[in-house]
Amino acid sequence: MTADPLAAFLTAARAHVDAALERVLPSPPACPAIVSEAMRYSVFAGGKRLRPILVIAGAEAVGGQMADVMPTACCFELIHTYSLVHDDLPAMDDDDLRRGRPTTHIRFGQGQAILVGDGLLTEAFAWLAREPDDAHPAIVARKLQTIGVIASAAGAAGMVGGQALDLDAARPHDGAPRPTFDAAALADMHARKTGALIAAAAVAGATMSGADAATIRAVGVFGREIGLAFQIVDDVLDVEGTSADLGKTAGKDAAAGKPTYPALFGLDRSKALAADARGRARAALETARLGGHLERLADLFVQRRA
Amino acid sequence: MTADPLAAFLTAARAHVDAALERVLPSPPACPAIVSEAMRYSVFAGGKRLRPILVIAGAEAVGGQMADVMPTACCFELIHTYSLVHDDLPAMDDDDLRRGRPTTHIRFGQGQAILVGDGLLTEAFAWLAREPDDAHPAIVARKLQTIGVIASAAGAAGMVGGQALDLDAARPHDGAPRPTFDAAALADMHARKTGALIAAAAVAGATMSGADAATIRAVGVFGREIGLAFQIVDDVLDVEGTSADLGKTAGKDAAAGKPTYPALFGLDRSKALAADARGRARAALETARLGGHLERLADLFVQRRA
Repeated sequence: MTADPLAAFLTAARAHVDAALERVLPSPPACPAIVSEAMRYSVFAGGKRLRPILVIAGAEAVGGQMADVMPTACCFELIHTYSLVHDDLPAMDDDDLRRGRPTTHIRFGQGQAILVGDGLLTEAFAWLAREPDDAHPAIVARKLQTIGVIASAAGAAGMVGGQALDLDAARPHDGAPRPTFDAAALADMHARKTGALIAAAAVAGATMSGADAATIRAVGVFGREIGLAFQIVDDVLDVEGTSADLGKTAGKDAAAGKPTYPALFGLDRSKALAADARGRARAALETARLGGHLERLADLFVQRRA
Repeated sequence: MTADPLAAFLTAARAHVDAALERVLPSPPACPAIVSEAMRYSVFAGGKRLRPILVIAGAEAVGGQMADVMPTACCFELIHTYSLVHDDLPAMDDDDLRRGRPTTHIRFGQGQAILVGDGLLTEAFAWLAREPDDAHPAIVARKLQTIGVIASAAGAAGMVGGQALDLDAARPHDGAPRPTFDAAALADMHARKTGALIAAAAVAGATMSGADAATIRAVGVFGREIGLAFQIVDDVLDVEGTSADLGKTAGKDAAAGKPTYPALFGLDRSKALAADARGRARAALETARLGGHLERLADLFVQRRA
């Protein structure tokens, strides 16, 4: 038994998220068995549900309730999972294992893995759009705003754009030269690739809970800074960690010639940059007087890969 | 100069759709140049914009205006394009040419093509969610309902599910036996794969324009029936057509061992089934007393592949 309030919050939030995912992911006869099976294999693969938890913490920090943001929270897990399934494909990062299990394309074939990702991304929006006919207009308006926040963070200007830059850095098409990355270009790529969706999770929780614009902005700064710290730590772990620690192949980014913080700044300076971002995240919360679990949640993102 | 009102409607609608797509697809610096270029290459590839036109016709049939459904209309083109880009990948249908041009993965590489599809799907929802802060609550509610209609039709129970069945029929994973298809299974696969999104286009136009539930249902029947007729004709053309007619390789479905209407029913019976579906589509419009261009638009879907 633990008396740690964060641990109790995490345990409760994870159980609720897993139960909601189990309940809402489509099953036969609504959808074909092969899609249902492959989607569930991908979603129930031992993830820590950090993004949904961040949505819930973002809601609670501004006075919202976990139950009211559960669909929003789960959407982030569907979108995160879709991004991993596509990222693992041979044409992208080409990973056979994730969290010690065969990746979706190894288990179900590449074509089905592409469709699983497409399906998870689409189901995220189907789920978000589901509101009772008699829902309060303010809730409906927040829902539409939240869909916009999520889609913008996940789309061509956000996660997809970051992945495209990352892929182009490692594998330029048709013999084009590798692009060079300075600090600004590296920060831009990482902000899109991982920071945008992490920031959107905190922002979505606050938005769905009716926070005012200034509070939502502060939550956004917090999210972007922990997203940045998260990515720098991920780059550091790729150098320092073991594959067992990471649950994926260590040293892959360096081997693929991808631009990373350690490659550009060295390990010590990279760690200092992560700590700086962590400090700015803390300051954003303090300025907006936001309590709850957000501050300590940040450590979960920063201390190790989600 | 033409005096045909349908031709004038099609010309005007296509021009508006193309202009809106050009305006709203993200560009640098909002998104990386590589994503913008590859998305535009895929979207501006000579498509007939039949799905957006069906949204507009669905709106006008119930008294709505083209301008009010333009984002909704364009979303269907983004989603249709994403489905083509992913469908053309080597792990799926493996097509090198579409409408006589190199497919997206040939031009930009498989990884970028996966990301282009992901980006187009996500941008569709980002675009749909964009409403002014002072939008009327009824419009906001219709928007959320429309997002639900589209995501359900495009997701695991709809298009993605149909694609998964189609892929599994042609290429079972890991040496599993090919599934057998009877008439019901074939109709189910096609209803998901192509019918659902076509029906959703007409329904979305009517929904955004504030049609009542009975009218929306009739528009849905119309859409599903022309979707079915469209797919049967597509199967027939795969047997009878030339690659030049189709803008893609003829005879591919049969060669891949995919279940098709001609394979199950023969050519003559297949053509009769398409005509039956076309008749049911007409009857649905007549019963709901829906005028406008919907009835003649149906012929565009049925007479040849979009």
